[in-house]
Amino acid sequence: MANYAETLPSRRTVELDDELLHDIRELIHEDALSRDEGQPATSAVHGGLLNILVDLHAADIADLLENLEEDDRQHVFSLLTPDIASDVLTELDESLRETLLESISTEGITKIVGELESDDAADIIQDLRDDVATEVLDKIEEGDAASVYQLLRYPEDSAGGIMATEVLTSFTTDTVKGAIRKTRQFVKEGILPLNIYVTDDEGMLKGFLPVGQLILLGPGRRMGNVMNPEVIAVPAEMDQEEVANIIRKYDLVSVPVVNKEGKLIGRITVDDIMDVVQEEVEEDIERMAGLAGTEELATSVFGISRIRLPWLLLGFCGEILSAMVLKNFQASIEEIIAAAFFIPIIMAMGGNAGIQSSAIVVRGLATGDVRLGGTAKRLSKEFSIATVNGVVLSLLVFAVSYIWFGDLRFGITVGLALMVVVLNATVVGASIPLVLERLKIDPAIATGPFITTTNDALGLLIYFGIMSLVYA
Amino acid sequence: MANYAETLPSRRTVELDDELLHDIRELIHEDALSRDEGQPATSAVHGGLLNILVDLHAADIADLLENLEEDDRQHVFSLLTPDIASDVLTELDESLRETLLESISTEGITKIVGELESDDAADIIQDLRDDVATEVLDKIEEGDAASVYQLLRYPEDSAGGIMATEVLTSFTTDTVKGAIRKTRQFVKEGILPLNIYVTDDEGMLKGFLPVGQLILLGPGRRMGNVMNPEVIAVPAEMDQEEVANIIRKYDLVSVPVVNKEGKLIGRITVDDIMDVVQEEVEEDIERMAGLAGTEELATSVFGISRIRLPWLLLGFCGEILSAMVLKNFQASIEEIIAAAFFIPIIMAMGGNAGIQSSAIVVRGLATGDVRLGGTAKRLSKEFSIATVNGVVLSLLVFAVSYIWFGDLRFGITVGLALMVVVLNATVVGASIPLVLERLKIDPAIATGPFITTTNDALGLLIYFGIMSLVYA
Repeated sequence: MANYAETLPSRRTVELDDELLHDIRELIHEDALSRDEGQPATSAVHGGLLNILVDLHAADIADLLENLEEDDRQHVFSLLTPDIASDVLTELDESLRETLLESISTEGITKIVGELESDDAADIIQDLRDDVATEVLDKIEEGDAASVYQLLRYPEDSAGGIMATEVLTSFTTDTVKGAIRKTRQFVKEGILPLNIYVTDDEGMLKGFLPVGQLILLGPGRRMGNVMNPEVIAVPAEMDQEEVANIIRKYDLVSVPVVNKEGKLIGRITVDDIMDVVQEEVEEDIERMAGLAGTEELATSVFGISRIRLPWLLLGFCGEILSAMVLKNFQASIEEIIAAAFFIPIIMAMGGNAGIQSSAIVVRGLATGDVRLGGTAKRLSKEFSIATVNGVVLSLLVFAVSYIWFGDLRFGITVGLALMVVVLNATVVGASIPLVLERLKIDPAIATGPFITTTNDALGLLIYFGIMSLVYA
Repeated sequence: MANYAETLPSRRTVELDDELLHDIRELIHEDALSRDEGQPATSAVHGGLLNILVDLHAADIADLLENLEEDDRQHVFSLLTPDIASDVLTELDESLRETLLESISTEGITKIVGELESDDAADIIQDLRDDVATEVLDKIEEGDAASVYQLLRYPEDSAGGIMATEVLTSFTTDTVKGAIRKTRQFVKEGILPLNIYVTDDEGMLKGFLPVGQLILLGPGRRMGNVMNPEVIAVPAEMDQEEVANIIRKYDLVSVPVVNKEGKLIGRITVDDIMDVVQEEVEEDIERMAGLAGTEELATSVFGISRIRLPWLLLGFCGEILSAMVLKNFQASIEEIIAAAFFIPIIMAMGGNAGIQSSAIVVRGLATGDVRLGGTAKRLSKEFSIATVNGVVLSLLVFAVSYIWFGDLRFGITVGLALMVVVLNATVVGASIPLVLERLKIDPAIATGPFITTTNDALGLLIYFGIMSLVYA
């Protein structure tokens, strides 16, 4: 991002680069040092630090905190005013936020929560110890507390869990002039709305109007007549990933959330959805890569180890099974030692074919392109694809092994085995996510190490099973 | 999405579910049938089809087209008016769009392109045959053609390539009233702007104002005094993934694009960025899963095969290397047959450890968390993590093999080998993406099959190398 800063020399928020990071660290240390020595920080140092922080965007301060050591981080955070501190907190990684919050007094937290929109407030209160959360909720404004309680009722990853309850609404019977007055009131509270939502007297959602359009309409017209009635809303129970799909599909910047009766209860803006998409991507990739969590959050070597080891250990156990399969076919291996040379090909082709089909099904289920209804059709298609790929790979491995060892029977056996292994791996890869989805378990765990390990053991069983049948 | 439709019985766009899809197919067939028989379609059937289409959101019509057969697809598309057809085209997958465009006359395409914003128009013109593109550009309005030519100058995946040139601007010297007039003019052309950007006389970007705020300001005030000067802009050359990172980080709904001098030349809205993020995710996952393209775009079994086979074949070649390594150590395997049983563990642990570290580095490079500057630090950290995980796995495999075969020397050898294999695989997994990044090759190819195949051959070489040294 350094380049980006260079091309915009005029007005911009200050960019956080390695050089600035270095300067800030120096200032913090001077500041902290003089405090430790019982002296007041020299006002120049302290002022210099504050000056830099004021110029930084909240997202950059969050970046800065993530790059600092524990002590420095608390020191810098303590310098922020409640309104900036609250913005910074919402931009921080969850684990870092939790540790920071533990270092702040309940009064400090209450001040910060008071500055936040309801969805961010609920996120932070969820991170607090139960007794602290109760105390904070007691101290903040009654209306705010009620909003937070409402949000906490919904699962964290549902539309209700990520929505904000601050939503600009007008009645169908309001005039455009009245709606403008409401918008003005709303903006005064520091929230810039993108749409105004229109409801009937009972709060049922009836339509919407982009705020920018208000200025283009006659002030005396009724909102019910000027609104766009084709409003796309999401129910509070909807999974956040599905909400993201809808926002992306219909190119929305904000989507209203309704309860079971169709009453407007909140809205989700696209910037929150960008974070959701990012979260889900990280999750998918973690799973495919066999990581048991988000590694950036762990900084110590042992912390990272804890994230990488679980899947390695699971794989280890699976491969012990593979070793037992091989032990079982010891006689075959001793008889035809060349059979051992093709173990890597059998394992790799089974593993890769399985990953391919599982990834396609998992992604398809996530984006809604694959539906449970079409299971039989999907599996028969995967079978056809596996047949095509299996035939190609089989012919190749037959050719290689026949040319290499000059043994026709051996070549045919390896080719046949690879064909069955690829067929099996592809169908297993496609089936497991479908089964998990039906069992309401996140199908995404069925990508990466899980599928490859399963297919390693099954593949070797098939390979040596066929080998020992042929050479029985 | 069927559930979502049920919970919103009142006002909504019609949802495309399996039932509706079935009804539409029937109507198309009746309609097409009567045309084939030389009879005019019964107006009831034809009208019914049109009625359904009119109620559907453009994104849903695109979905519908993707679910229809080739002939039906063209038939339905031909029923759409140019303004709806143009919206639908922008929502379609690229490969489908290309085939559809081939079936339309140049006049038809010209009408459709005339309805589009510049960024979408450029996308479509890029898909056309060169002679058709030139003809279309000749026929559309001169100003529109100039915008398209400008956009085509930038790489497809740069900020300049994805921006729209229709940008609502006012001068610093304009009054709020004047800015409102410009907004009104803009909206009349069918584009609803989110922000108004403010430039000086020479077009240099100076600030911005959310359109919704215009109504809250005194009409006589100067834009230069009411604008927010802290505008975050991106240069036209910036990669689209970096633009996405900036939009997400700073919670933007729209970002202005500037040229090298800092002049405002376009804007990118968050809905386009959602598509970019989606594209990049699909790409990352394809690469990790070893797919050579986006599979949803291919519908035939052979088409999908073509996407899955390349990486399988690459893996195949790599594993032939592994087979040659094993052949080379035939004597060792014959001497200690148990060594063969641990081939799967060696391969799987090397493969998994390599995938983990490569995925972390590749993601880090994409999000900017990992910088090339810290290469040595990164590698030494990976080495530490690999040491911790290697020690755990080594002790385990030592225990298992010692208990199983009661041979201390064998147990120690397997344990030692696994330690070295995990160390090597982790460092290889982290290094290859860093090397690729330095060579300006997309590091994402170094995830999935590429890393596992490399580590399979290296791992077996290390394993049997150590084995033959110990038992020499």
